This record gives sequence, structure tokens and C-alpha cells, in this order.
Amino acid sequence: MEFKVGKIRLKVPEGSGAVLVKNLYLSCDPYMRGRMREYYNSYIPPFVPGSVIEGFGVAKVLASDHPSFKSGDFVSGLTGWEEYSLIQKPDQLRKIQSEDLPLSYHVGLLGMPGFTAFAGFYEVCSPKQGEYVFVSAASGAVGQLVGQLAKLHGCYVVGSAGTNQKVDLLKNKLGFDEAFNYKEEPDLDAALKRCFPEGIDIYFDNVGGAMLDAVLLNMRPHGRIAVCGMVSQHDISDTIGIHNLFMTVMRRVRVQGFLQSDYLHLYPQFLDKVIDYYKQGEIVYIEDMNEGLESAPSAFVGLFSGKNVGKQVICVSPK
Amino acid sequence: MEFKVGKIRLKVPEGSGAVLVKNLYLSCDPYMRGRMREYYNSYIPPFVPGSVIEGFGVAKVLASDHPSFKSGDFVSGLTGWEEYSLIQKPDQLRKIQSEDLPLSYHVGLLGMPGFTAFAGFYEVCSPKQGEYVFVSAASGAVGQLVGQLAKLHGCYVVGSAGTNQKVDLLKNKLGFDEAFNYKEEPDLDAALKRCFPEGIDIYFDNVGGAMLDAVLLNMRPHGRIAVCGMVSQHDISDTIGIHNLFMTVMRRVRVQGFLQSDYLHLYPQFLDKVIDYYKQGEIVYIEDMNEGLESAPSAFVGLFSGKNVGKQVICVSPK
Repeated sequence: MEFKVGKIRLKVPEGSGAVLVKNLYLSCDPYMRGRMREYYNSYIPPFVPGSVIEGFGVAKVLASDHPSFKSGDFVSGLTGWEEYSLIQKPDQLRKIQSEDLPLSYHVGLLGMPGFTAFAGFYEVCSPKQGEYVFVSAASGAVGQLVGQLAKLHGCYVVGSAGTNQKVDLLKNKLGFDEAFNYKEEPDLDAALKRCFPEGIDIYFDNVGGAMLDAVLLNMRPHGRIAVCGMVSQHDISDTIGIHNLFMTVMRRVRVQGFLQSDYLHLYPQFLDKVIDYYKQGEIVYIEDMNEGLESAPSAFVGLFSGKNVGKQVICVSPK
Repeated sequence: MEFKVGKIRLKVPEGSGAVLVKNLYLSCDPYMRGRMREYYNSYIPPFVPGSVIEGFGVAKVLASDHPSFKSGDFVSGLTGWEEYSLIQKPDQLRKIQSEDLPLSYHVGLLGMPGFTAFAGFYEVCSPKQGEYVFVSAASGAVGQLVGQLAKLHGCYVVGSAGTNQKVDLLKNKLGFDEAFNYKEEPDLDAALKRCFPEGIDIYFDNVGGAMLDAVLLNMRPHGRIAVCGMVSQHDISDTIGIHNLFMTVMRRVRVQGFLQSDYLHLYPQFLDKVIDYYKQGEIVYIEDMNEGLESAPSAFVGLFSGKNVGKQVICVSPK
């Protein structure tokens, strides 16, 4: 990544249908790593070297040539990693209706990561009250909401994370029943057996690899594994491989890869439910906020070593 | 395995509720390999060393202390690898109602393997007309029926097998659209891309391992993979591991392990449908019949190197 300084003209070309925005918050999401290599036939095209990085953000409209947006509106959606963006296809933007919640939440709790948690948990995991739920990368942007939704659903919920600080957050702030630091466990299978003596009904997989292999040994009959985005980053350079897939037969386990974009018809329902939970104090959301666009590259890289605590956001400008 | 000769008394103990049978056909099924090791917490207990091997068979009732069976009845179900068996729990036996079809088919086309194909294809694969279906071990006891059901469902069907003789059977007797000998393909991914330029909607996986890994690279969006029994045998000693599970996210693929025993409520419907298809000449079934109980051990071992052509059966006695 390269940081460039230059001058631009803050004007929307007439007849372009475009919108000019000032970027306030930018989202660092693991899926973006996949756009930095040449996947063939991916669901999303790779970044073009030399051009501005595209990602989710919250922005303020400065000028608009599109009938749905006017100057002063706050929007969320795909924007650029830059101070100001000319958005050529504004139809993908969502207008932020209420400013009751922090604006940055629209790339986290109320944005793609939150919706990933919602769609993945309710639509892919088919949860039932009383089931045993395991979440990896549990304090991350997606995991922290999955765990809280599972608790509200009446499940027993355990999370894994990579530092003791995160484990403490899971147990004492996010309401998980149990949590462990996978980096301090010499035997993941043993750690899972300790936390789930009865086995696991649902695994919300944010990491893949060795943890997935250990989880497969601990699934209960008819269990479900929702495979979320990050696994794609991990596995492609993972030379270990998954050895315990035979357990899917033994325990009749369903392993389902998913993308939140397949469930967008549920977005309004998601927003209503999560905003309601948040206002009632039923859920909290932890952000890791870096200040300034120049902090974006290192914050993004930090995602892959677990440097972030909670959802990683870059504040370009507070308003 | 050990072959023992001894004398027994052909008599059912009074009040035992047992049934004495003469075994006619015994089934060699890959899942039995799993009973020859100590799986912990498996769906089926391991064999006890020194005791008679248990397996599916077709038998004739010689004497009965159970009200549902009488001398002369033909039955199928779990019996022993021996000439005569005293079946202590006859409730699991099915009485063979019609003798229109070969008796041995009750451990193949009309037995557990056939029902595995039926339940796996219709219930697990969620097939739609026109979809692209791939079957591995396609000339085997399960695969040959999966392929024929898929053709009858209006799918495009390709099978893989391990000899040119089997490939020929797939194309010229079993009605597959295309087939290949995986042992002659230096690159499984390339073989699949040649057979499925548009990708695979459904993979009925009888083998796991390297083939599964190659298939994952070729799945279409929202594809389904039914993981059938044999993978459990393969993967447990497979040190390669599966590397392409990230494709389940990219293509939103469902990987579902299953056991036919979870679908037994559909058995009557299965029998009606398959017997009907068979009588109308819509499907055929290939058996590999070995003569004599003493041929059973080598026939069983041969399953794992693909020695059998079609469903492996042992004829203990033709009637």
C-alpha cells in the first residue's frame, strides 16, 4: 500500500449521476485481502494496482447529481480509502436515517460485519434454544455479535481469541459463557472438550485451519458449521489442510459457506432488530478506532495478526 | 479375518424371540472398515475381535420364535458372515415381499447402498433439472444408482472410476453423459474442467481426499456436496488434507455429511420408485458376485483397491 498526496477538484460532473462525499469512517475488513490477489472467478473483482482501495465506509454528502442524495446526508456503502470520493454508482449507498447510534457503527454493528453475523447465525446455523455454540475470532467485528445473538437466542456460547485481554472482554463485557486464548492451548481438541463436554451443535467459523479441524472432532450429530469470510484468507496459504472431514459423515454435519450479500432482503429486518437490541442495552459493540487515513495500511495489516481489539475502523474525520 | 469351521445346532431356543436363518447373500460394504478400528463415539460400535463379522445379507428363515417371521420366508437385514445365523433381534429384518427381482439386489439396489443413493441424491443434494452432477466411485454400489437417478432427474452426469473397463460401463451401460479414469488423469482439476466447463452443481462424494479438493475448485455458486460413507475410511489415514475449503465461501457451497439411517421413513417410497424404474427398464444394476463364504475376506479387502466392478456381493448359497 502506498500513501499519496495530491489535489482534486471537489465537484460532481453534471449529468454524471454521481455523488461527492467526504469520507468519515473507513472499514478494515478481512475479505479485502482476497481482492489483493488474482482469484479466478471470485464473487468480487481484485483491486487494480495503483488505484484507490475500495472498501466500506461512512461518509457525508458534499454535492450530489443523484436524486436520492443531497448535500449534508450521511451515507454508508462502498467508498474509497481517501479523504474525498466521487462515487460513480451511488445506488449501492445506504442513507443513514437515524443518528442515535455512533456513525462508525454503520461499517460495524449495523454494516456488513453485523449483517454477516445476523445472516450467518440465523439463516445458516439454524440455531435452537439450548444448543452449544462455538465462535472463533470471537471478539472480532463479526464474532462479537454472533456470540451475543446466540446468548439472546438461549444458547450456551464459548468463544476463542488470541490474547488474554480479548478473552477477558468475551467473558466480562460480551457475555460469553466461556472463552479461551487459543494461543495458550497446546491442544485445541482438548480445549474444546473442556469447554464442550457434550460437544458442539453450531460452529461459527471465522478462521478455518487447525481450529476447524479440531472442531470437526467435537461436533454433535446434525451439527452445523457456518464458514465465514476469513477462512478464505487463511486457507489459501495454509499448507496443513483439513484432515477430519470424515467427521461430517459420522456426525451428519452440514458445512455451509456463505456470503452476507446473498441475504440482503433481510437487511431491513436486521437493522430493526439490532438497533432495538442495542437501544435496550441487550448488546454492546467494541470498536478499535485508529485516527487518520495514514493509519489505515498498518491497521489493515494488523487484522491478520489479531492486533485489533474489536471491529477495526479508521476515523478519517469525525464529521 | 479368520475362517473357522465348526458344528452348530440348527435350533431356535424357545422363548428367545430369535430367528434361525440360512445366509444366501452377504454384502461387502466400505462402511464395515470403520467397524474394524476403535472410533470413539461412532454411530455404530466396532466389531469385537474373535466374533463373527456382522453385515447386511439376504437369508432364508429356517425356524422362527418371532411372530413376524416363519420358516421359508426370505429376509434382508443385519446377519453374520457365516452359513447359518441365529438372529437375536429380528425386528431389524425386512421380509422380502416380492421375488421378481434377484434376491441379491436386497443388499444392493434395493438395500442399504441403493437407499444411500436415493436419500443422498434426493434429500441431501437438492437436485434440479438441468444441473451438472459429478459422482466419484461412480460404478460402485452407491454411485451407479446416483448417476442413473440423476439422469432420470434431467441432470448432466459425469462419473469417475479407477479402470477403463469401469469407465466403459459408465458411458455405455449406465447412461452417464461422460466418465473418466482418475488414475490416468495427471491433473484432476484439469479433468473436471474438461468435463464441466460450466462447473459442478452437485458432487456426490464417495471418496474424499484429492478428488474432493479438486472438485471444490470447480463448484458453481450455491453448489451442494453430499459426503457419503467411504470418505470416512479414506481420510482417516489420509495425510494430505483438504486445502480448498475456502471455496465453500467463495461459491457458497454446502458440504453435508449424511447417513442413510437418518432417512429410513423414506424407505417404502424408495422401494416403490426403484422397483418401478427397474421393471420399466429405466435403470440397471451391476453386481460383482463372488462364490462361497471363503471368498468373502479377499472380496472385502478388494473394495479398497477398487477390485470390484459394481456392487460386491458374496453368494454363500443361491437358495
